[in-house]
Amino acid sequence: MIRVLAFDVFGTVVDWRSSIIGELERFGNRQGVQRDWSSFADSWRAGYGPAMDLVRRGELPWTRLDDLHRRILDELLRDVEIQADEDDVDHLNRAWHRLAPWPDAVKGLHRLKERFTITTLSNGNVSLLTDMAKHAGLPWDCVLSAEIFGHYKPDPEAYLGCAQMLDVAPDEAMLVAAHPSDLRAARDAGLRTAYVDRPLEWGQPGRHRVAFESGEFDVVATDLHDLADRL
Amino acid sequence: MIRVLAFDVFGTVVDWRSSIIGELERFGNRQGVQRDWSSFADSWRAGYGPAMDLVRRGELPWTRLDDLHRRILDELLRDVEIQADEDDVDHLNRAWHRLAPWPDAVKGLHRLKERFTITTLSNGNVSLLTDMAKHAGLPWDCVLSAEIFGHYKPDPEAYLGCAQMLDVAPDEAMLVAAHPSDLRAARDAGLRTAYVDRPLEWGQPGRHRVAFESGEFDVVATDLHDLADRL
Repeated sequence: MIRVLAFDVFGTVVDWRSSIIGELERFGNRQGVQRDWSSFADSWRAGYGPAMDLVRRGELPWTRLDDLHRRILDELLRDVEIQADEDDVDHLNRAWHRLAPWPDAVKGLHRLKERFTITTLSNGNVSLLTDMAKHAGLPWDCVLSAEIFGHYKPDPEAYLGCAQMLDVAPDEAMLVAAHPSDLRAARDAGLRTAYVDRPLEWGQPGRHRVAFESGEFDVVATDLHDLADRL
Repeated sequence: MIRVLAFDVFGTVVDWRSSIIGELERFGNRQGVQRDWSSFADSWRAGYGPAMDLVRRGELPWTRLDDLHRRILDELLRDVEIQADEDDVDHLNRAWHRLAPWPDAVKGLHRLKERFTITTLSNGNVSLLTDMAKHAGLPWDCVLSAEIFGHYKPDPEAYLGCAQMLDVAPDEAMLVAAHPSDLRAARDAGLRTAYVDRPLEWGQPGRHRVAFESGEFDVVATDLHDLADRL
């Protein structure tokens, strides 16, 4: 019996790429500069895994995702030779607090919330996730984050901490994510798993999509409405 | 400028006493026993401060409020010579997850949520607060708890942890509470403070009400609507 649905957020619930490209275009217009913002957005996102791994390996003390995003952003701005005011860069860095949901996300979450406790289980910090929920209208029952557990996914402590804090056994919690690696780590920690297909996460349909075996996850859904139907 | 309203919950947002007495009456009916349930409820609540202080002084390792409630409950049931099945006692102990809001609370929170980030800052554990929010329809933006900070209020770590996790300075956060001791500790940690009068918290009007000086707190309100008007 599943009691808790724990959601990966970036890519699974919100369309980070379109949102970030839009914010970068507005930033560029304010600065009066033009760059390849799609490629910039992809690089920003690509820097997140390696930065987090520094924390996961203990080479960097605990650092919030906001601050990891900022380190990557500062480097990328140097690379493309843009100098901007601190306020402008800070506002841009908080673009991750203002991501737009996928079209099915808000209604799908409302449906799922009727039967389950729905929580974030994201590497985003609590203030990021809280701001995003207000901005996008995401009706979370609670906001859980790697920040609370002091461990970034895919460390098992994040998945187990979520189940423990919501007072359910690991197999009473289901991770919902668009990324097989996240789901595999959740499954290895004893959680149930639901894959949600987000073919447009990286722009062109299917770009960077990772294959998985049939039967690897408990549920495979096309979006959150389909997930609600299947559960 | 206030950006975050952090709410004490028991007594401030929910009417624990009426709810607990009602749950005890139903428990008694199921068990076929009759006791003074009002007095039992008051004793249950009165045991909470001393139990928490054992944790705060380090005489007990971190223990969730659910488990502190259960220790007190087991002792009280022994005192009144009631033996019940584990399932019944567990259900009764979770009565704190099902408390009813004060009549103004849900609408008041919805009004305040339009302008501020509204969070719990309660000694209740995360699962208790999450269940209660679903049960009572409390529209929190996020659920913060002593459990997350590993410190019960009035330890300063709880107030400061709340501000830090929501990425605001202490004086950009305001504690909303019906208890001067909680508000004084928040004020000492640098937070803003709003007193909400709950004269019926302990049954008869004004019972156990603690006096405070005029001007001690930033805002004094009669309920959450009045608080929304004043802010």
